[in-house]
Amino acid sequence: MSSLEASLAALSLYQEVPEGAIQAKSLVFKEKKSGSPVVLIALSSTKTDSKVVAKSVSGKEVRIANDDFVNEHFKVNAKEFSIANINTSQAGKYKIVLDSQIACAESSAVLVLSTESSKLALEASKLNAYLKSTGIEIVEVDFTATPAAPAPAKKEKKEKKKVAAPSDAALDDAKLIGITVDKFKDFPNWYSQILTKGEMLDYYDVSGCYILRPPSYAVWEQIQAFFDKRIKSIGVQNAYFPMFVSSRVLEKEKDHIEGFAPEVAWVTRAGNSELDQPIAIRPTSETVMYPYYAKWIRSHRDLPLKLNQWNSVVRWEFKHPQPFLRTREFLWQEGHTAHLTAADAQKEVLDILGYYQAIYEELLAVPVIPGKKTEKEKFAGGDYTTTVEGYIPATGRGIQGATSHHLGQNFSKMFGISVENPEGKDLPKVNVYQNSWGLSTRVIGVMVMVHSDNKGLVIPPRVSQKQAVVIPVGITKKTTKEAENQIYEAAKDVEARLVEAGVRAIGDYRDIYSPGWKFSDWELKGLPIRIELGPKDLEKKSVTVVRRNDNKKYTVSMDNLEKEIPEILEELQKDLFLAAKEKFDTHRVIVENWDEFVPALNNKNLILSPWCGVMECEEDIKDSSAKKAEEEQDEEVDDKAPSMGAKSLCIPFNQPTLKAGTKCVKCARKAINYTMFGRSY
Amino acid sequence: MSSLEASLAALSLYQEVPEGAIQAKSLVFKEKKSGSPVVLIALSSTKTDSKVVAKSVSGKEVRIANDDFVNEHFKVNAKEFSIANINTSQAGKYKIVLDSQIACAESSAVLVLSTESSKLALEASKLNAYLKSTGIEIVEVDFTATPAAPAPAKKEKKEKKKVAAPSDAALDDAKLIGITVDKFKDFPNWYSQILTKGEMLDYYDVSGCYILRPPSYAVWEQIQAFFDKRIKSIGVQNAYFPMFVSSRVLEKEKDHIEGFAPEVAWVTRAGNSELDQPIAIRPTSETVMYPYYAKWIRSHRDLPLKLNQWNSVVRWEFKHPQPFLRTREFLWQEGHTAHLTAADAQKEVLDILGYYQAIYEELLAVPVIPGKKTEKEKFAGGDYTTTVEGYIPATGRGIQGATSHHLGQNFSKMFGISVENPEGKDLPKVNVYQNSWGLSTRVIGVMVMVHSDNKGLVIPPRVSQKQAVVIPVGITKKTTKEAENQIYEAAKDVEARLVEAGVRAIGDYRDIYSPGWKFSDWELKGLPIRIELGPKDLEKKSVTVVRRNDNKKYTVSMDNLEKEIPEILEELQKDLFLAAKEKFDTHRVIVENWDEFVPALNNKNLILSPWCGVMECEEDIKDSSAKKAEEEQDEEVDDKAPSMGAKSLCIPFNQPTLKAGTKCVKCARKAINYTMFGRSY
Repeated sequence: MSSLEASLAALSLYQEVPEGAIQAKSLVFKEKKSGSPVVLIALSSTKTDSKVVAKSVSGKEVRIANDDFVNEHFKVNAKEFSIANINTSQAGKYKIVLDSQIACAESSAVLVLSTESSKLALEASKLNAYLKSTGIEIVEVDFTATPAAPAPAKKEKKEKKKVAAPSDAALDDAKLIGITVDKFKDFPNWYSQILTKGEMLDYYDVSGCYILRPPSYAVWEQIQAFFDKRIKSIGVQNAYFPMFVSSRVLEKEKDHIEGFAPEVAWVTRAGNSELDQPIAIRPTSETVMYPYYAKWIRSHRDLPLKLNQWNSVVRWEFKHPQPFLRTREFLWQEGHTAHLTAADAQKEVLDILGYYQAIYEELLAVPVIPGKKTEKEKFAGGDYTTTVEGYIPATGRGIQGATSHHLGQNFSKMFGISVENPEGKDLPKVNVYQNSWGLSTRVIGVMVMVHSDNKGLVIPPRVSQKQAVVIPVGITKKTTKEAENQIYEAAKDVEARLVEAGVRAIGDYRDIYSPGWKFSDWELKGLPIRIELGPKDLEKKSVTVVRRNDNKKYTVSMDNLEKEIPEILEELQKDLFLAAKEKFDTHRVIVENWDEFVPALNNKNLILSPWCGVMECEEDIKDSSAKKAEEEQDEEVDDKAPSMGAKSLCIPFNQPTLKAGTKCVKCARKAINYTMFGRSY
Repeated sequence: MSSLEASLAALSLYQEVPEGAIQAKSLVFKEKKSGSPVVLIALSSTKTDSKVVAKSVSGKEVRIANDDFVNEHFKVNAKEFSIANINTSQAGKYKIVLDSQIACAESSAVLVLSTESSKLALEASKLNAYLKSTGIEIVEVDFTATPAAPAPAKKEKKEKKKVAAPSDAALDDAKLIGITVDKFKDFPNWYSQILTKGEMLDYYDVSGCYILRPPSYAVWEQIQAFFDKRIKSIGVQNAYFPMFVSSRVLEKEKDHIEGFAPEVAWVTRAGNSELDQPIAIRPTSETVMYPYYAKWIRSHRDLPLKLNQWNSVVRWEFKHPQPFLRTREFLWQEGHTAHLTAADAQKEVLDILGYYQAIYEELLAVPVIPGKKTEKEKFAGGDYTTTVEGYIPATGRGIQGATSHHLGQNFSKMFGISVENPEGKDLPKVNVYQNSWGLSTRVIGVMVMVHSDNKGLVIPPRVSQKQAVVIPVGITKKTTKEAENQIYEAAKDVEARLVEAGVRAIGDYRDIYSPGWKFSDWELKGLPIRIELGPKDLEKKSVTVVRRNDNKKYTVSMDNLEKEIPEILEELQKDLFLAAKEKFDTHRVIVENWDEFVPALNNKNLILSPWCGVMECEEDIKDSSAKKAEEEQDEEVDDKAPSMGAKSLCIPFNQPTLKAGTKCVKCARKAINYTMFGRSY
């Protein structure tokens, strides 16, 4: 192994993965007939059909190797296998199948090879040279030029292939498309897999940016419709302000810009011309909008001014990006309102927070706790921040859901947004009171983390792009052509009736896949219910309905489809919420003594503790809980939360009774309220 | 004048207006009592109430000076007046009122002073020094500290002030808020004024970017709802791709990138870190999306793939920007679809073009001509482009409305988007056929240019944020308090009933403005109808309805409001379209001989001519018509079209019969079709 390590050391190892780096994968297969390993190295984006891999090594069939097999040949677990486990001593023992897109890549292209616990970035030329240096036989394959998916069955063949049970090939495929990691053992990889395999999202070649595919954008559209209607009912109007902001304007409010400056992306060039002044891309639009509020608001009759926009903002975070939760560009809405009185503004802050809570609880079936942020965690430059806080059971971490800020008069003084005094024009002018509030596509990530499981996504019916899939079943070799046609026609009729009734239904009539394969496929994608229709159902004039979340089955009479299917969907929506609420309620514990604090954290709880409200104490809690965690806990909750300290999440509006004289959970001071703490995203 | 010119030459004159420059204005007033001029120099964003100007020079009343007055005192027309017309010889003759925001501006702040035909950018310190050097008395005024709008009438005063006719002050105000230029004499300034004074749009401090205020964004929302429903009905799904694109990917399709490269904005810095590789902001998303199409599309069963996104794109144009028509960031939708066959793709191209035509004609009441672009004008990298072309009567220019492109297999070959051959897996793989299609907020500018007039905006009812305003009228000194209350209550009732009936109605119950002032205000904003309700209407149990576009009046019985008001709105919608269509139809002329070509252009026509289809001839037509125009025409159509040549706009689908043997309008070749030419935006 030492020569190998020396070889690797010679490779140029990047400290950080550079922009434009390309994801690659390395996999070990077992060739069935010979029992030999086959190592595949390919771009992640290349669809590497196992049949093509088999053919290229003149084998019959290859399967992904299990841990034992990989350990036997490479002395490492399958998840940790990488090119670091390939060495000259293996020459002659197996073949490497190399994606021609790597073999022919520009020599300076940077490839990223990841294992579960490590990441290696190196130039294509160096990877190719290294592989060659091992002396192992390399078979170069152009996967894009080779048919990957099974050819469509021809008419004659189809007749023969009709089988009730999924064919071997289909099962093999099903395994390949399914989720290969456990939610509770490897949460980050599970999350990444269900999003990509469930086709919600794809990784993009600019780091920290992601593609929202139709099923996730559809969730966002449901949220938009829901929220837009409500804010318009309280007089908010939509508008659109430019994405660019000059540095002069951006830097006007000092506290505010301090919070955002390190993450601002700057445009410095257009075409071949350098700009005189770099121009920022908005990280949020306070400073974009408020100079115009100052211009437009002249009289108290111009108040309240309530504008909202649906847009994208850019925060160039350098921390590890995570789909939906921490992305460099994200979609959101940002509302910015100006009011004559503090009372009017403060009422709106809570109205909006109520809508946010409703989005989580009524649409996404995710329970949240509304409350106020501490001074340390509030929005920079504002008076106070209200928030809804969620909980991810699998990791035991809290997550900020959406925030509604009261800015007081801080920005209006800075930007000169004022009106004549309505009490008399000789009195001093009045600076307006402002709010800003925002909810982003982060909500989609929270929804996915809370409900989904090891079979894939679980999407609540109210926001799912499609709510029900109709699948013909029970067609065997003995089924007559006529009977088969009847089943297909009946299925299409069910689909059409449901669509007519307002259910977002589709039918899966693909004839090359078995019902079992289809079940897995739609479970992966998280469709709330599947509707099975076979010969027996047809006889009984009913359909079989299976819920995605718990496999609960219903038999629904054909006569009652339009009534019962929507009811089943609503019941499922409610049950998802109740299940999530039960988990949150049982993992939100009251802790009065510091000794119990970290153990409760380590048991995946959020904590309600009496607290003194002093910022230094808050920092002490964070530091102390981080250290304690290190001391007491060997096993880490998930690999993004190594010995993470507890932050204050919010001061819940709904407070336990604070007994007189209660001390702060951490320090000697008197407690002023119960504050919710937890590890968080 | 020569000393003045020398002074000005000493100022630093910017070749190009720099980023972050601030618009300023210079205006001449006439003081009523003394008859002297008053020169005002202020930021454009400063609301400079004429009462404040009068007060600051100890005058009684000032009015904007007319041409004669300005000529008499400054030897220049009012529209051309600038600081260049101020000189030392005028010292003692009048006063300059100087906005304190200019007097106190940072010395390096760059101010832009525009006249109709010129633009001067100079640093605040130099402007201030120059003014001081003239020796003319300068009065510095802080307009923001001085009540600008009339103070709200106190209860006792209001009783006395009740007058049926608008007060003098209101008339004065009305003039100030109204449009001060003629659509047919000064189209660019008219356009800018109606957009800003009508509160559709505001100028922004980053050049080429504009703020879409609620009334214009509401138009966009109507378009979104209309189009979204239609594309979803043909299987298009919405998605969201990142705004960033790496240079490697952006530059993949050479023809395509050539068209966009000079306008691409580049992010090179994040926070304080220089990026390793600059990252582009998408000018359009072909190259953003298609690598993923290659990844996602594997089998013919994955086709058609039809995605659309509602987003903003950035094209850093260096030409003169124009609100809605040419902006550096704009909102649009871009659809990108992939099909198995050319026929399937080509059908969709026309389906989409039909929806675009419907947006123009059914929503915006703007007639358009659908057709195909010539090779010269088609989308770079595509097979062919279809388009809907509009017409701006006031300038006689054509305008591209929206385009739907068939890309053929050009991009799919470049990006490797292919599927196995459905005819047999041993046959070569098939590259998919692709379309892309887009419609932008430019449509709003076209709508405004076509319908609006010298009183302000005219917005078609179907897209107007508000459709009807209810205004109480006929309240005089003799009106009893009880009668007044009755009128207000009745007006509020009318408003509520209309809202209930689905009409987007509002009421204007502001008690400090006269009805006449309100009429002008809502005419400026382009509301389709106003509903007047006074004592006589109340007696007759009816309301008076007045159409914005033509002042046509209706008396509508209170009993029939819910039925007749929507009918009046629909009739207005239809009449707007017919009026625009009549103008377009009478200004689209067939020209067979070159001699008649330029004269027809100069008469504000678009031209249909038999044409040979040869690109060199197209260029010749452009050059020749530009030269001819210079020779023959002294007066320019509008100042952005100086001697502009005619471009081909489209080859209309609806063709006049081309007689056998017809020659091209310009050259000796045979004509192959009728092509529409015109000056254009």
